Amino acid sequence: MDRLVNRALSGDHRAIARLISLVESESPLADGIMRSIYPRTGRAHIIGVTGSPGAGKSTLVDKMIHRFLDMGRSVGVIAVDPSSPFSGGAILGDRLRMQNHAVDSRVFIRSMGSRGSLGGVSGTTGEAALILDACGKDVVIIETVGVGQSEVDIVKLADTVCLVLVPGMGDDVQIMKAGIMEIADVFVVNKADRDGADKVVADIRMMLDISFRGDWRPPVVKTCAERGDGVEDAVSSVMSHREHVLNSQEGRLRRLSRIEAMVEAVLRKEVSSLIQREWGKRRSEGLLEDLLLRKVDPYSIAESILDEVLCSK
Amino acid sequence: MDRLVNRALSGDHRAIARLISLVESESPLADGIMRSIYPRTGRAHIIGVTGSPGAGKSTLVDKMIHRFLDMGRSVGVIAVDPSSPFSGGAILGDRLRMQNHAVDSRVFIRSMGSRGSLGGVSGTTGEAALILDACGKDVVIIETVGVGQSEVDIVKLADTVCLVLVPGMGDDVQIMKAGIMEIADVFVVNKADRDGADKVVADIRMMLDISFRGDWRPPVVKTCAERGDGVEDAVSSVMSHREHVLNSQEGRLRRLSRIEAMVEAVLRKEVSSLIQREWGKRRSEGLLEDLLLRKVDPYSIAESILDEVLCSK
Repeated sequence: MDRLVNRALSGDHRAIARLISLVESESPLADGIMRSIYPRTGRAHIIGVTGSPGAGKSTLVDKMIHRFLDMGRSVGVIAVDPSSPFSGGAILGDRLRMQNHAVDSRVFIRSMGSRGSLGGVSGTTGEAALILDACGKDVVIIETVGVGQSEVDIVKLADTVCLVLVPGMGDDVQIMKAGIMEIADVFVVNKADRDGADKVVADIRMMLDISFRGDWRPPVVKTCAERGDGVEDAVSSVMSHREHVLNSQEGRLRRLSRIEAMVEAVLRKEVSSLIQREWGKRRSEGLLEDLLLRKVDPYSIAESILDEVLCSK
Repeated sequence: MDRLVNRALSGDHRAIARLISLVESESPLADGIMRSIYPRTGRAHIIGVTGSPGAGKSTLVDKMIHRFLDMGRSVGVIAVDPSSPFSGGAILGDRLRMQNHAVDSRVFIRSMGSRGSLGGVSGTTGEAALILDACGKDVVIIETVGVGQSEVDIVKLADTVCLVLVPGMGDDVQIMKAGIMEIADVFVVNKADRDGADKVVADIRMMLDISFRGDWRPPVVKTCAERGDGVEDAVSSVMSHREHVLNSQEGRLRRLSRIEAMVEAVLRKEVSSLIQREWGKRRSEGLLEDLLLRKVDPYSIAESILDEVLCSK
């Protein structure tokens, strides 16, 4: 195991992939891996890229990777596949496109599922990001479809959150309403050659005028990722935000709350596996039957399990 | 509290609403409420209605309510609002339409958020469904947007899952691929007056021919919910499935696994609140600073908290 970790820390992509797989599968080795790499973390710039399905996130990420490579940075990408019954296909297609980079030793791309993690999605995704950080990637991009709470949690793992919008999806105003403004550090209006792009930009700016507070006013960047237009601006906005995060009180608070979330995720994961073990020991056909017949209730069962497991409630 | 529970059990909508609010807000009273109502549960037909945004779920549910009322059944509806930044607006609009029924004493409609529940969304939604069941609703409809894991979990709470599709959304094939076939007990092709409806029906049937196994072959029903067409068929398919569930081995297994999931959800909720309490006691500016500087790692902190809280790991 030490050898595998050392190989990963020296930048070996196969070893990195293996570590992430162990973490993702919640191997008993995962905790040991994370403990040994943790002191090496905290150097990478973690960028979250989110937005509606069809906003062109993958193409944008693709172009951003190129830009970072041109600047001499190594890049890790974690694409969180929501495994949603309603979007599985499109995402798979996107991933195939991104594999262009897979041959480049400075880019590591990994797709991760968002199902069935004991510590929640943000748990294993966060750990994978830390692994890439420890293993020397200068930039770690977490790409996720922005629907659902779990995706919002993922986004909170990032130093910088890039929200990708497109004209004509009709969701511009809704986004504003629902308060996603607060999570975006950089707005990217992609497919900006389409009608209505300027309207989207104006809407975002207006909303910022009304609701913005704090030290960092999120810039609004127009891109046409397919053609590469505006990608340089997007990357430099993202990098300016990084500077801001490193040198401001706001950024410090953000790092603290991220660490807190990490402790909670680790606790949650440990406790969930404990629960599954304890319930597994006690569950029996007879007990389930009693539950079904309403002779006992789930709350009393849960209480008796907790009484046994916990020192003090 | 006993008086409130008794009023709810006798069908008083204001008391029911109050109980659900207590459960939703994770009040310390929630467990007591659930214990006292649990023996009265197990009678309602719990129906999950899911599908992409824009599939017309709310209109369909609206018409289904009417149909059940005509048959002399009382109805409870829990609309799970994913609070998604990308869909907030539309869902609010749908809910407003459904309020037509709010005046009818045989219909109880409640919108629930899907954020920030300790036991996960399925926890509180399941509890609300049990409350409606105990309080005498013959039919409990859980309506949810079918994206993301948490929504799939909700759907698993139901006796009967109704998957709503529409022509021309381009997601028909993807749905098949991603294995949502397994969760659907009844397929509803809504907006069936649109071009391509028969194609969607044929696609579903073909997929069922290939992949279907088990005792219940999910029927495919065409509706045009806006005009009320086909709603009667949809409701009778849903009711036939209920008969099947009550009288088959498959249905028994389903009820058992639902009860198991409930015990796990209760355990998870209890343990999560314990963790938040314990972590809250220990967290300090100094500890967070040490974490930030990588002097300690989150895994060791979590371990020491668990060591203190648990009798045996």
